[in-house]
Amino acid sequence: MEVAIMMTEQFVSTSITPIDSLNTLSPYEVNKLQDASQGGLYKLFRQCSLAVLNTGSELDSTKQVLDKFSRFDIRISQKHRSVQLELVNAPATAFVNGEIITGIREHLFSVLRDLLYVGTELDVCCPGANESEATTNMVFHILRHADAIRPHVKPDLVVCWGGHSINRVEYDYTKKVGYEMGLRGLNICTGCGPGAMKGPMKGATISHAKQRIKDGRYVGISEPGIIAAESPNPIVNELIIMPDIEKRLEAFVRLGHGIVVFPGGAGTAEEILYILGILLHEKNHNLPFPLVLTGPAGSEAYFETVDKFIRATLGDAAAERYQIVVDDPHEVAEVMRDGLEQVTRYRKATSESFHYNWQLYIPEAFQQPFEPTHENMASLNLVHGLPDFELAANLRQALSGIVAGNVKEPGVRAIEEHGPFEISGETSIMEPMDQLLASFVEQRRMKINYQEYQPCYKIKPAALEEVS
Amino acid sequence: MEVAIMMTEQFVSTSITPIDSLNTLSPYEVNKLQDASQGGLYKLFRQCSLAVLNTGSELDSTKQVLDKFSRFDIRISQKHRSVQLELVNAPATAFVNGEIITGIREHLFSVLRDLLYVGTELDVCCPGANESEATTNMVFHILRHADAIRPHVKPDLVVCWGGHSINRVEYDYTKKVGYEMGLRGLNICTGCGPGAMKGPMKGATISHAKQRIKDGRYVGISEPGIIAAESPNPIVNELIIMPDIEKRLEAFVRLGHGIVVFPGGAGTAEEILYILGILLHEKNHNLPFPLVLTGPAGSEAYFETVDKFIRATLGDAAAERYQIVVDDPHEVAEVMRDGLEQVTRYRKATSESFHYNWQLYIPEAFQQPFEPTHENMASLNLVHGLPDFELAANLRQALSGIVAGNVKEPGVRAIEEHGPFEISGETSIMEPMDQLLASFVEQRRMKINYQEYQPCYKIKPAALEEVS
Amino acid sequence: MEVAIMMTEQFVSTSITPIDSLNTLSPYEVNKLQDASQGGLYKLFRQCSLAVLNTGSELDSTKQVLDKFSRFDIRISQKHRSVQLELVNAPATAFVNGEIITGIREHLFSVLRDLLYVGTELDVCCPGANESEATTNMVFHILRHADAIRPHVKPDLVVCWGGHSINRVEYDYTKKVGYEMGLRGLNICTGCGPGAMKGPMKGATISHAKQRIKDGRYVGISEPGIIAAESPNPIVNELIIMPDIEKRLEAFVRLGHGIVVFPGGAGTAEEILYILGILLHEKNHNLPFPLVLTGPAGSEAYFETVDKFIRATLGDAAAERYQIVVDDPHEVAEVMRDGLEQVTRYRKATSESFHYNWQLYIPEAFQQPFEPTHENMASLNLVHGLPDFELAANLRQALSGIVAGNVKEPGVRAIEEHGPFEISGETSIMEPMDQLLASFVEQRRMKINYQEYQPCYKIKPAALEEVS
Amino acid sequence: MEVAIMMTEQFVSTSITPIDSLNTLSPYEVNKLQDASQGGLYKLFRQCSLAVLNTGSELDSTKQVLDKFSRFDIRISQKHRSVQLELVNAPATAFVNGEIITGIREHLFSVLRDLLYVGTELDVCCPGANESEATTNMVFHILRHADAIRPHVKPDLVVCWGGHSINRVEYDYTKKVGYEMGLRGLNICTGCGPGAMKGPMKGATISHAKQRIKDGRYVGISEPGIIAAESPNPIVNELIIMPDIEKRLEAFVRLGHGIVVFPGGAGTAEEILYILGILLHEKNHNLPFPLVLTGPAGSEAYFETVDKFIRATLGDAAAERYQIVVDDPHEVAEVMRDGLEQVTRYRKATSESFHYNWQLYIPEAFQQPFEPTHENMASLNLVHGLPDFELAANLRQALSGIVAGNVKEPGVRAIEEHGPFEISGETSIMEPMDQLLASFVEQRRMKINYQEYQPCYKIKPAALEEVS
Repeated sequence: MEVAIMMTEQFVSTSITPIDSLNTLSPYEVNKLQDASQGGLYKLFRQCSLAVLNTGSELDSTKQVLDKFSRFDIRISQKHRSVQLELVNAPATAFVNGEIITGIREHLFSVLRDLLYVGTELDVCCPGANESEATTNMVFHILRHADAIRPHVKPDLVVCWGGHSINRVEYDYTKKVGYEMGLRGLNICTGCGPGAMKGPMKGATISHAKQRIKDGRYVGISEPGIIAAESPNPIVNELIIMPDIEKRLEAFVRLGHGIVVFPGGAGTAEEILYILGILLHEKNHNLPFPLVLTGPAGSEAYFETVDKFIRATLGDAAAERYQIVVDDPHEVAEVMRDGLEQVTRYRKATSESFHYNWQLYIPEAFQQPFEPTHENMASLNLVHGLPDFELAANLRQALSGIVAGNVKEPGVRAIEEHGPFEISGETSIMEPMDQLLASFVEQRRMKINYQEYQPCYKIKPAALEEVS
Repeated sequence: MEVAIMMTEQFVSTSITPIDSLNTLSPYEVNKLQDASQGGLYKLFRQCSLAVLNTGSELDSTKQVLDKFSRFDIRISQKHRSVQLELVNAPATAFVNGEIITGIREHLFSVLRDLLYVGTELDVCCPGANESEATTNMVFHILRHADAIRPHVKPDLVVCWGGHSINRVEYDYTKKVGYEMGLRGLNICTGCGPGAMKGPMKGATISHAKQRIKDGRYVGISEPGIIAAESPNPIVNELIIMPDIEKRLEAFVRLGHGIVVFPGGAGTAEEILYILGILLHEKNHNLPFPLVLTGPAGSEAYFETVDKFIRATLGDAAAERYQIVVDDPHEVAEVMRDGLEQVTRYRKATSESFHYNWQLYIPEAFQQPFEPTHENMASLNLVHGLPDFELAANLRQALSGIVAGNVKEPGVRAIEEHGPFEISGETSIMEPMDQLLASFVEQRRMKINYQEYQPCYKIKPAALEEVS
Repeated sequence: MEVAIMMTEQFVSTSITPIDSLNTLSPYEVNKLQDASQGGLYKLFRQCSLAVLNTGSELDSTKQVLDKFSRFDIRISQKHRSVQLELVNAPATAFVNGEIITGIREHLFSVLRDLLYVGTELDVCCPGANESEATTNMVFHILRHADAIRPHVKPDLVVCWGGHSINRVEYDYTKKVGYEMGLRGLNICTGCGPGAMKGPMKGATISHAKQRIKDGRYVGISEPGIIAAESPNPIVNELIIMPDIEKRLEAFVRLGHGIVVFPGGAGTAEEILYILGILLHEKNHNLPFPLVLTGPAGSEAYFETVDKFIRATLGDAAAERYQIVVDDPHEVAEVMRDGLEQVTRYRKATSESFHYNWQLYIPEAFQQPFEPTHENMASLNLVHGLPDFELAANLRQALSGIVAGNVKEPGVRAIEEHGPFEISGETSIMEPMDQLLASFVEQRRMKINYQEYQPCYKIKPAALEEVS
Repeated sequence: MEVAIMMTEQFVSTSITPIDSLNTLSPYEVNKLQDASQGGLYKLFRQCSLAVLNTGSELDSTKQVLDKFSRFDIRISQKHRSVQLELVNAPATAFVNGEIITGIREHLFSVLRDLLYVGTELDVCCPGANESEATTNMVFHILRHADAIRPHVKPDLVVCWGGHSINRVEYDYTKKVGYEMGLRGLNICTGCGPGAMKGPMKGATISHAKQRIKDGRYVGISEPGIIAAESPNPIVNELIIMPDIEKRLEAFVRLGHGIVVFPGGAGTAEEILYILGILLHEKNHNLPFPLVLTGPAGSEAYFETVDKFIRATLGDAAAERYQIVVDDPHEVAEVMRDGLEQVTRYRKATSESFHYNWQLYIPEAFQQPFEPTHENMASLNLVHGLPDFELAANLRQALSGIVAGNVKEPGVRAIEEHGPFEISGETSIMEPMDQLLASFVEQRRMKINYQEYQPCYKIKPAALEEVS
């Protein structure tokens, strides 16, 4: 049901007010949002707002989006009744007969809420916490401030990961999985964007309607660096903008109660490595965490490739942490339901809250931002002999750099300037990685416009002595 | 997203209570529902309940459904908190992990509500009304009792007609049209069942979610004779069971504010003739009533056939009452929106209620049940020279008989016993009708299992002197 | 907090629409409400509407109210959005700054709802029921149509009876009792009007606010003959107009789960005899039904008098059915709460519904309207030797006649024409009755304007041989 | 309706969870609330919680309350579903049949919310703001975090000030004023506690019920130093704990849209001086701010005294800022309604928000905490010749000290140790002040237990040369 809304004009200028009572601002906050200087929030606010308004776009490059709507502007003012936003030259696709789609209106104010909170108010004291714990606490505060932490509900939030440029069969499959999960009362959390981020929400919307679930949750967690390339679709009824990619990932695994991974590209593989690396840490050995990799008939290749890569690099034990289900939405939903039952029992037994997974131990390597410079990419330590979780962390960083080089603005620019990243490591790791990436290219999973794909990396296997 | 729920067992037995406060019954009402004698409601209640539970079935014959679930039973009892239904050997498809789908639970109690109201309570005094007006008033009371009459809302209810066995492309098209209408805040009313009855509701569910419309209306109007073959899908959140097919049709045109017709078969053509015949009556000449016939590219043939037939029989003027839109969901939604604006203005100007179209004049020929016996079919008066609306009424009855002969239990039995219906009339009408029906057979629109289609009719053009 | 709203004008003319979606009417219903002929509802509708608008009035005679507002008129019309009422020369007390008090607006539409239902639609089939059972069924249908029958709630509705012209101390006491009951989550049902009808609702409103109970029920059950003298106060959020006094009483005892009786006059004594007579019937011997008579310190006399009268006429066993609590609101609430627990257990054990007491047997003598003519009053059979419930029924009729002679229009007129009623019976009953009534006069409980009270009855004890 | 709930035990121990979704806490927050050390919140949390639980108490001394419930304890823990509070030896008056009154439960979590926010999270950046503006901004943030800032509503919040130990006639009068204001849709804000803080809310509760206003606001603003002596009554449905008395006062005048002052004592006079001093500042000259002083017949003396004092010290012009209404609740409500209309127009005209009065200029003297030591009291500058607002500020501090000496713990202790405060100033100010205070003593407005009242001050008029 990809519907093209044709409009005679591409741009709309208008002013809008928040639909609910979320937004009353102080003059200082209004100023901060208007402030285009370094310390101000204007640039970030404009960029995220544009992403939100540009929903349904087929551009997957932030740069392209920003270029196309270079004349877009957003101004904020406080009226006697509430805050008001002035939109200038906004994408017409966000409007129907001149009125903004309500879901998009909500998203604009979610952006405002999260940017302001992180930018002006978030300064939480947590005496006795180390840096990692302070980060975890900050993620908690951002989520709670966004009203995403819900007490008095049983574990029911399933995170769906996967590609945003999957094919039609895969997309329909994600809808069916979402449908089956929604039929069982489960809620959906994704990273925003099209494809595997959107399908499960559409499916769950239908089954929630059949189950008369009026408060179904369609949580979208994004961050400023990715949002332009993965605009939230308006079904998302809880949009949260985390400050950076690592906190976004932490939000997924602490807020969500289980994860379903659909086929995707390098980004999806990065996410698999992220959760797997965490679960492999000994402190998490006993923690139940349902993790299903699934796709329709015809897409087995993706998970076979990934599975093979994981077994080759992290070992067979790592593969026990996930379950692969092929072409069976009903089974996926049942596995997930059973897994959430286990999570529920475990949290009860250990007096852990249902709504935020404080227990999950996230090694600092997964929390620290990884800046994908050529230097950092070149110096990744990709050898056997490290603790599992550490190797997983390093592999994730490698993939993270490749995603950046493919679609993120600074990454793309760096590649344009300096040529492909060079990644080196132990042969027994570099070879599987080479195969993994080659397979992604072959499966056309690297970029939406796969015809033009130019690899942004070079794999350099090295003799063991070289790397150690 | 046609999802097959596999279950190890085909049948479920359980007991359920109403989700809301609709149902408190007197002992007399409980008895009436349990009463299997002639005066009782048990047989009707069981049949409609089974239809509701059998949602998603691919059988389009009431007889087949009844045969398959011959061991199904439903018993009702009054407990201290509310009414309770005992289901025995109910179709497993209505359940998820042993729990009935909430939408279906609602439908069961809607069935109960309407059968009881019509069967025990409906006896409305309307002094001064003639029989036709009394019928119109009865339809109003049934709808109001079902809470379908909503004051304080602007005209926004679009009736969607069309086939229940349309192809995938057509089905996807109905979803897109529903999506575009939902995006504009419009609500959907159909006759229940799959295909064109379901698609628009699914589409609107998605766009209502995007517009944060929590109280979107998905009205399904059925009647006992058709419900088994056209089970309501659980998205329908207002199910209404009218006592017979003519009151069901009247409910559509008085409750709905406009009509979109998708491709279908003889039943759909019958519905087109119904509304067209009414609109052609001089008392309705000034009444705005948006009527759009539409389908995707590739399905033009259906409306070309119908349009040709209408022009040949009722004349070109009749064709001015509708608009044909090919492959443009956006345009359909815009046309409908504009049409509803006109309806709104007209009702304001004439002080007519928004919620029930009392003004629409329905000639008695459209209100009286037509019993499709061989005799009645043979004696239909199908000649030119009658008032337009009357010829339309007679043509509708011809098509109604054919639908009965195709899929309705008594009709099918009658055909089995006595062979095809014979329909005769003026050649200039019989020839277009023959072409219309032949074209439906060719387009495989006569029955779900089109391979086996055996025409249930014979067209007999007659010299003018014979018929008059 | 009896607040006098001063207005420069005594009358207001305006038009109002219903606040919710209750009211969409057919043209026939509109006509019926406008129809001032014998078969029409206009007279009744005007009278009840005036009563509802005249809230807070201190007049306790229907005639006085009707005279004062002789120029009042109410017209109804159907607009495109909903029904609209035109009020002409309505009491200004119903308005604040020109806008009608919302509670009163609701009441107007409740009046409309009930009059129409009884007058045009109520014709319920209940095969196999005798006349008494049919009446019980009719009461059920009227209550259910008024949405007063609530499934899925535990017994919690306490009926409060008592005088409408009690003194300040008594009034404050009824507030405290209502407060304590509301604090325990109980809901209140009264007969509308000031005094003991209003106090408990005010008290419960405060405690419901403290308990954050937003859906507290303040049910007022009236009937056309009494409503003008006992206008519902706007706290009543469920107003129900029963067709006559006997159905009103039946509604109290089948809808309510327990009864608290405050001091009152002859009408209150009549109500006590009504419930007591029913409970004394052998079919109700095992039925739990909490019944508390209570008043503040200083008002003991009322219940002492009544208690003495009951023991003298119906025997000590009758007195076991109620409990007298003096000056202890907390205790009243606790007794009632315990009693409702018993009711709950009993209904569970016997599979009786929580929401309507079908089990309670009401002898026909309590269901039949008693017309208080001089002849009927004179021929009441007031002797020992009858079954308890029958003597109670006859005593109730005697008191009913006296109430009519005191405040109801036809009764007052009959007394004006023919002088006081004569009531005769066995001395051992007539003497206690004489004492009871004399005591009411002495306690100034016969009429609001007690100074002018002229007894409307004469008690004639008779030798046993005379009466039998 | 002051209801004494008798319980066999005075103390209750139990555990409770929040009723809504307000409270999910991080482990750091839980620790902070448990931390009894200097930096922790335990002591404050225990004290405020006890105050909230001790509602309806007649003790007006914090010390007495703390002594009586010395064995009270409150512990907090995070369970899997939400936060849980353990109460040990809590006042039994907060419970009904062992269950805590819901309003009180809400209050406990409001306390928790505000203490935590101020104690751990509140660190708002407001670049460019001076100290006074930063304070105003902090007040805004606390109120917004408590969800007290509501956009999209017109000015309707009336602050009611006045004594907590007024007599019955005055108390009933405050109810009537609240009733009349509620009837006009106005909402109530007070400082918590009994008397004039409670009556208007009770009155408005009744009229809101009549107007079917389900979301009526009963805002109670307190602070740790006063809450024990002025427990919020459970009708308060928005309890806010400000960090100190000055921010509490600022919250009143920026959140509220108008003020009604009932009779009170020195504290009430202090509040009058507070708002008057602010309004007298030239920056506020054009700002509409409805201010009504009112009481029942018989209480004229209070406002006469105050009015005389104001005219004597601040001049007749000051008296133009308020209106005195005697014994006319209807008039008070009308004056307030008109005043709010003006406020609305003014804010629209000046683009000021409806929900927070940023425009109101509050001189720093009114924002800075005044510590009522003997030294500070002695050095107050009470002479003519100062700007009006400054003299008002100084006079307010004088009264503030007296209130502290009367009822606040540190003040009372200081008086016990060092004897009465000495207040000196220009005779033409000291004499009116002496009369004012003497009149309060005479009117028994200084303390609940007026019999024992020992003045905590000495007035020392001084020659002009001495003080300047």
